[in-house]
Amino acid sequence: MRNYVLKGNICYSKSSKELCIVENGYVVCKDGRSAGVYETLPEIYEALPCYNYEDKIVIPGLVDLHVHAPQYSFRGLGMDLELIEWLNTHTFVEEAKYADLEYAKKAYDIFVEDLIDSATTRACIFGTIHTDATLLLMEKLENAGIVAYVGKVNMDRNSPQYLCEESAEKSAQDTQKWLVDSQRFQYVKPILTPRFTPSCTDELFERLSELQKKYHLPVQSHLSENLGEIDWVKELCQGTQFYGESYHQYGMFGNACPTIMAHCVHSGEAEIEMMRKQQVFVAHCPESNANLASGVAPVKTYLEKGMKVGLGTDIAAGSSLSLFRAMASAVQCSKLRWRLYDQSVAPLTVEEVFYLATKGGGEFFGKAGSFEEGYEFDAVVMDDTSIRHPQSLGAKERLERLIYLAEDHHIAAKFISGRVIFREK
Amino acid sequence: MRNYVLKGNICYSKSSKELCIVENGYVVCKDGRSAGVYETLPEIYEALPCYNYEDKIVIPGLVDLHVHAPQYSFRGLGMDLELIEWLNTHTFVEEAKYADLEYAKKAYDIFVEDLIDSATTRACIFGTIHTDATLLLMEKLENAGIVAYVGKVNMDRNSPQYLCEESAEKSAQDTQKWLVDSQRFQYVKPILTPRFTPSCTDELFERLSELQKKYHLPVQSHLSENLGEIDWVKELCQGTQFYGESYHQYGMFGNACPTIMAHCVHSGEAEIEMMRKQQVFVAHCPESNANLASGVAPVKTYLEKGMKVGLGTDIAAGSSLSLFRAMASAVQCSKLRWRLYDQSVAPLTVEEVFYLATKGGGEFFGKAGSFEEGYEFDAVVMDDTSIRHPQSLGAKERLERLIYLAEDHHIAAKFISGRVIFREK
Repeated sequence: MRNYVLKGNICYSKSSKELCIVENGYVVCKDGRSAGVYETLPEIYEALPCYNYEDKIVIPGLVDLHVHAPQYSFRGLGMDLELIEWLNTHTFVEEAKYADLEYAKKAYDIFVEDLIDSATTRACIFGTIHTDATLLLMEKLENAGIVAYVGKVNMDRNSPQYLCEESAEKSAQDTQKWLVDSQRFQYVKPILTPRFTPSCTDELFERLSELQKKYHLPVQSHLSENLGEIDWVKELCQGTQFYGESYHQYGMFGNACPTIMAHCVHSGEAEIEMMRKQQVFVAHCPESNANLASGVAPVKTYLEKGMKVGLGTDIAAGSSLSLFRAMASAVQCSKLRWRLYDQSVAPLTVEEVFYLATKGGGEFFGKAGSFEEGYEFDAVVMDDTSIRHPQSLGAKERLERLIYLAEDHHIAAKFISGRVIFREK
Repeated sequence: MRNYVLKGNICYSKSSKELCIVENGYVVCKDGRSAGVYETLPEIYEALPCYNYEDKIVIPGLVDLHVHAPQYSFRGLGMDLELIEWLNTHTFVEEAKYADLEYAKKAYDIFVEDLIDSATTRACIFGTIHTDATLLLMEKLENAGIVAYVGKVNMDRNSPQYLCEESAEKSAQDTQKWLVDSQRFQYVKPILTPRFTPSCTDELFERLSELQKKYHLPVQSHLSENLGEIDWVKELCQGTQFYGESYHQYGMFGNACPTIMAHCVHSGEAEIEMMRKQQVFVAHCPESNANLASGVAPVKTYLEKGMKVGLGTDIAAGSSLSLFRAMASAVQCSKLRWRLYDQSVAPLTVEEVFYLATKGGGEFFGKAGSFEEGYEFDAVVMDDTSIRHPQSLGAKERLERLIYLAEDHHIAAKFISGRVIFREK
């Protein structure tokens, strides 16, 4: 049943500057899409069932543009290193365990169950190099009703032997098999996932590029996260002017190939301009970039240039699966960047980070992340009763406060593409 | 009944470098103080009642060195400004409401109830200029069993008329009356609280200095938080070399007058040296310093110099009352400071921030914040069962993860000076 009305304080973004709030309003779900937000319910919708959430806050589902499912097991742990050392010391060791399907089952059950409990309705997810474990993850997400792009990771160089695919050819064959097997899912789609340039040979990129064209696949990877990483890519790819070109030369950097690049903390002007022209999505992961001492991406600049930007939790370099925390972190990190580093880039506002976590990231999925008419009906109902206050507060203020203070237990209901994930808790 | 044993995974700091963990251990409470941590319970304690917390994590109660109780009502709101504008636009307007005891009662009930539910066992708290409301706050804390220093705030210049005391003399008289009235409390003690130099005349400082000597009071205030504030103090106090001297010239800067100075983000060498010599406690408030775009204090340097440092949530410039979040924030902000601003000051470690939130801040209360023998028995039991993981983890790792992910519902029990606040939830 995908036709109904939600009543409550409806909050959604039209743009990074325009946050719309209708207190005691209505948002209508028709065939899984929004039929608009109303102060008074139009007569034609009066016959629909109405879920009355009274004074609660109703927002679009949140979108996580960058999260590593296999790393969820060590969230909040081992963040004493910078990127490359962190990968070698903690990450690769853990990801290798997913060769064991029993371990993968246990770990992915936890990840998916916590994702259901969160405010996230859509996500772009890294798996591991293992096709079976990745299919298992996709199946669990599908059963949960979460909309996701999931990638089997490719890596055939500069990786520990226990987590290195034996050849570009074998990696491509496995990927092809995984692509075919993953066609059975309805809500969960495959996305090509070369880990990052240092871990993929030119031959592997060529093979993946062929698959990309054959299956019209989107791509996700990492870009310009850490200074040491950037130097390394410069050494590895001497024919390129900047890191982004290492993907672009294989046609895996936007436009015909929808692309998400995580981080973009240290992108130079030419790289930024190429991302803009190619409509590459930036997955901004502020907590991760603080935890690994990477820095802070100039997100305000990206927004001002009209670039595509969303938020990522980047589990496990980010510790929390909560996009509310990612929003707060994005504001806070942008302020420290402004104070400590570059006063020409203004801090992010509450309106902007709410946009990033909803419509900004949602755009990668088409019309998602807003309640404007025709958008996929993803909604989350927030019950903030336990965040008590002596004064009266408007819905805008309560939304702002949730960005800083929301925890999973404040989530009262969740809907994805009109499907009810849970209607009460 | 203040003699008993707690069984669980006992974690506590001996110093900023030494984190002690005894898995499946015992910590003994005798007459409200710790009688030590043991792997095997000594025979002499076998007759004591033992609360078996099994595989849970037992830590010393956390200490909040800087929090504004009246600002709790607008936590997570209005952080779009820097310090001085933020005070004028949001803070002073809210604090003025505490002239109304009915409002104060409603607001302080919420603050104290949430403080009880938190992992904080001791706090240094700012009230408002209002003596009655401040006494009401103290009474509520006393009834809750929380150990606290609470200050009636003094401000007689550069403040809006509705929140400005009419003269130094009247401010001192009110303070004296409040000091006498607050002698009835056992766990909650008064602390002199000139808001900060810009809001106190020389005459007011003189009067407060007399009260300080007469009653041997500790002092709390703000120092070198924001660049505009520091310039303002320079203008106001032309006889001083640096901000800290504006307190020191009245004998309210450490040593004979135990002092907490919040922030110390931009303290220069001479100020730092004076704080060190005077044993002034720095209340490091990382989330606040990010939210108001103040910057990041060089805490590692302070620790290396052997200075006294603890953590503050600084509600409402900080949004969360959780000292776990303050710990995570302290690590993250120190990493961004290192990356963006000054690579000569290393980031903080998990061991260091745990020390800051326990023994570091606890020292302001005497022997508090550790389980070493003779320390006041403040303990918090953390049930992290809901933070699930597929692999096995040691207590150290689970503690580290709690720093990033703990929420109030993980707190299973709380003890202060041996008194049971709650033994289960």
